[in-house]
Amino acid sequence: MKLFRFGEPTNEKTGVILSDGKKIDVSAFGEDYNENFFTTDGISRLSTWLEANADACPVVGDDVRLASCIARPSKIICIGLNYAKHAAESGMAVPTEPVVFFKATTALCGPNDDVIIPKNSVKTDWEVELAFVIGKKASYVEKEDAMSYIAGYCLHNDYSEREFQLERGGQWVKGKSCDTFAPLGPFMATADEIPNPHDLRLWLSLNGEMLQDSNTDDMIFDISTILSYLSQFMTLLPGDVISTGTPAGVGLGLKPQRYLVAGDVVELGIDKLGTQKQTAVAYQ
Amino acid sequence: MKLFRFGEPTNEKTGVILSDGKKIDVSAFGEDYNENFFTTDGISRLSTWLEANADACPVVGDDVRLASCIARPSKIICIGLNYAKHAAESGMAVPTEPVVFFKATTALCGPNDDVIIPKNSVKTDWEVELAFVIGKKASYVEKEDAMSYIAGYCLHNDYSEREFQLERGGQWVKGKSCDTFAPLGPFMATADEIPNPHDLRLWLSLNGEMLQDSNTDDMIFDISTILSYLSQFMTLLPGDVISTGTPAGVGLGLKPQRYLVAGDVVELGIDKLGTQKQTAVAYQ
Repeated sequence: MKLFRFGEPTNEKTGVILSDGKKIDVSAFGEDYNENFFTTDGISRLSTWLEANADACPVVGDDVRLASCIARPSKIICIGLNYAKHAAESGMAVPTEPVVFFKATTALCGPNDDVIIPKNSVKTDWEVELAFVIGKKASYVEKEDAMSYIAGYCLHNDYSEREFQLERGGQWVKGKSCDTFAPLGPFMATADEIPNPHDLRLWLSLNGEMLQDSNTDDMIFDISTILSYLSQFMTLLPGDVISTGTPAGVGLGLKPQRYLVAGDVVELGIDKLGTQKQTAVAYQ
Repeated sequence: MKLFRFGEPTNEKTGVILSDGKKIDVSAFGEDYNENFFTTDGISRLSTWLEANADACPVVGDDVRLASCIARPSKIICIGLNYAKHAAESGMAVPTEPVVFFKATTALCGPNDDVIIPKNSVKTDWEVELAFVIGKKASYVEKEDAMSYIAGYCLHNDYSEREFQLERGGQWVKGKSCDTFAPLGPFMATADEIPNPHDLRLWLSLNGEMLQDSNTDDMIFDISTILSYLSQFMTLLPGDVISTGTPAGVGLGLKPQRYLVAGDVVELGIDKLGTQKQTAVAYQ
């Protein structure tokens, strides 16, 4: 099953993409895709509900705004430097254990929303990433059990202001949390649709030029390692988003470095998880 | 006005401490102290409601568990190294701009709950801090306007696992986010009750021995600077918690270093904001 959300920011609705590709409005189900939905086995409940009600659901056209594919979670956790070539292009060592940082959940936005270049930003950069969504409360999870804690997968662009992140003192969160820096979607594919998340091509282009083109089989720490590892340090809640790191080809790593300017168009995708397209605009 | 919350973790209720010190159950008001409450001017609405209803509210006894004084926010943001002596004891330079890190909101707990020493922890440490709560959505706020964005103030113990934070690679969030690492309360005093948040004694004792004893007038970056600064990097939402850093006297800075073991009793307080008391227990 593929879950998506649509409509204007103050009035977002839930939808499902059926196996034939048809998009339907399931707001009559009466729940957002949030912590409570995932906690209470919402995917199964929605699936059962659809058997009786799918035919009566309105079709969603292709002209609507897509929202973040799930509601604002309690956490967006990101893994840094999880592809060896990206660590090298960033001038950093390959980590011996996962590098963990947070993104403010206020950064969440729709997959095709404009990316706002923050006020005073000179180094707004892109990062195509595979994200997964937690399906049940996770604390001290063993690696061999980890995959059963995953509700689904989605595409994430982990936008990053490199000056804020690396040159303003302290921790990375400063450069990761601006509004619109976490486009998520276009949909979350439930875990059963992605039997092997470690063999997915992921790519990103800037104004049509392919800059990132890799495969999730190149991750240093795999998904079960990441989930188990994080759960040693904090409790993961249903609906939490974990983003697994970006491959080489970000602006910071190019020679010369390149960063977004207003009008730039960023497109990205992952096998089986759809594509995103953002246009960069200046903060106003 | 002083807001507090009480009751068992799955059934927490809201309360108010009246000016005569009496604690009343205001759950009949029908709202938790969450993002929606602060967004919709809940403090004023509750105040008006109390004029008609306070007499009918049940009294809350002293034997109840106190919960976090506000509901789980979208963010807990902390400022690092904001007292010069603490930066020195941590072996770090005094920062030239605020050091910012996040704590997982799942760390939130009541002011007198046991602090759980995480599995595999050998360096669980304490940090008494003044926290403030955001009262309205804040983005690119000027320093001179910053204080008007504050709903209130409360006491926070920013528990920190130093090995997780500093010796496990990457970012500090790993050592700041364990369950029970953010006791908040006993109450949030609304901003009008704290006309000068920069002249409050704050202290912490371990098993009766005073280890931290300072004053908020020693902060390097004051509250309006912190709020304005953060709002350049992310949008702060009503109900978000910002913790302003700890003074000298943490376990990391002692010679020899000292860390919590099961049975230790941590007590802390800030002028006008009450006290907390946690007993350290091993994870089970």
